[in-house]
Amino acid sequence: MTVHAPLSAAERAEFEAFATGIANNARALSLPRFRRPVDVTLKGDMSPVTAVDRGVESMLRERIELAWPAHGLLGEEYGASRVDAEFVWSIDPIDGTRSFISGWPLWGTLIALLRQGQPVLGILDMPALDERWIGHVGVGTTLNGLPCRVSACRSLADATMYTTTPDMFTPDEWAAFDRTSRAAYARRFGGDCYSYGMLASGHIDAVIESNLMPYDYLAIAPVVEAAGGVMTDWEGRRLGLDSGGRVVAAATPELHAAIIASLKD
Amino acid sequence: MTVHAPLSAAERAEFEAFATGIANNARALSLPRFRRPVDVTLKGDMSPVTAVDRGVESMLRERIELAWPAHGLLGEEYGASRVDAEFVWSIDPIDGTRSFISGWPLWGTLIALLRQGQPVLGILDMPALDERWIGHVGVGTTLNGLPCRVSACRSLADATMYTTTPDMFTPDEWAAFDRTSRAAYARRFGGDCYSYGMLASGHIDAVIESNLMPYDYLAIAPVVEAAGGVMTDWEGRRLGLDSGGRVVAAATPELHAAIIASLKD
Repeated sequence: MTVHAPLSAAERAEFEAFATGIANNARALSLPRFRRPVDVTLKGDMSPVTAVDRGVESMLRERIELAWPAHGLLGEEYGASRVDAEFVWSIDPIDGTRSFISGWPLWGTLIALLRQGQPVLGILDMPALDERWIGHVGVGTTLNGLPCRVSACRSLADATMYTTTPDMFTPDEWAAFDRTSRAAYARRFGGDCYSYGMLASGHIDAVIESNLMPYDYLAIAPVVEAAGGVMTDWEGRRLGLDSGGRVVAAATPELHAAIIASLKD
Repeated sequence: MTVHAPLSAAERAEFEAFATGIANNARALSLPRFRRPVDVTLKGDMSPVTAVDRGVESMLRERIELAWPAHGLLGEEYGASRVDAEFVWSIDPIDGTRSFISGWPLWGTLIALLRQGQPVLGILDMPALDERWIGHVGVGTTLNGLPCRVSACRSLADATMYTTTPDMFTPDEWAAFDRTSRAAYARRFGGDCYSYGMLASGHIDAVIESNLMPYDYLAIAPVVEAAGGVMTDWEGRRLGLDSGGRVVAAATPELHAAIIASLKD
């Protein structure tokens, strides 16, 4: 993936230092409240939200607005501001709230930086597992500081494929997913954002999902792509602020093309 | 759950010390090989098996046969012997082999002791998460040494429910599961044996699965039941060596009854 306005080395260092700092702050708020009683309310789309989601997002927004007052900001719980700015931050305080409230360790905090509408830096942080992927587009992805890389899997027949739940698909989407995933070596369910980390580290080969929001995929795309993978919408288009919620992430261009073709059949 | 021949306090202590010792040995074999290249072969039922599964089971069998030559033994990879003995051990070296080979931390080692055909002691060990549940029927369940307890959830409408994958059900079973899980507060996929640990610790309220083998559920039943839950087959019958592979685990008798009724509808 190429971006039209990549970060300089100095910008990368500065933004990564800032982003990992606020990711640490987010862990300090979320982790002590994991597996503790927490009030859950349902949002308009019937997805759950907790005081932890809101508290972490408020903290992240404050930190970002204080440090970068001219930057835009997009978050799960409190909406968007200045999204036409050169730099825009996208944050999901708790991706996998259903996992969080079920005691499951597979929830993460997602932080992305976009430049001119394109994600250039992504952090996928798993507090309960102490695993953090950082992807710099055009440079590389690390897991806990060590470089990681997608698998070499090129064919659907050899691919291990993940998706969070059949419930994220419309009936038509399910038909396309079902056909595609049955042609894979294996399909498995569960995972939320963690699946993309496993893809970036070469343990699995593809993820197909739907009904995602921009703050779900904007941090993940740099992690996957800088690890050597490909991540687009179901039509094969680059992901940006206004992509639909249907994403395909794959280890290689060949596998990605095979999945896109199968989804269209 | 009552058993007709419970262990004495001295037997509990002796068997637990032995079982946790071999669970430690299993971790020492499996964990260093997690996320490393490993050969995968498919068994007759198309489920995958690795050298790690076989190595761990061989070690566990050797340890058990050396320590308790008169006891029976039942394992995933190498079959059964003396299952009519007063005491029978049931072992699953890697429950969730698909997770193991996908880099997912949600795989476990399952060890059960049966007396007169009834499971009386169960260990659910999660090496990659450093979490170990130990259930003594009639006494209690611990997670890493601290007592744990199921939730108080009594109604399907309030229940958070897990199952590993839609692919474990026949079409008729899926219809029954789908109807039941849609009546729940939430349904989620993924987990293998870990779901039952989350149930024993009160984080989720029910698990419904099918196509399990005795070594899958025999270690889990004591963990769930000694934590205050109920675990049976889909007809509400106690689990033993010759139960079918369909299980329902629930936090309370009321929730369990509601699930059994819904599955039968």
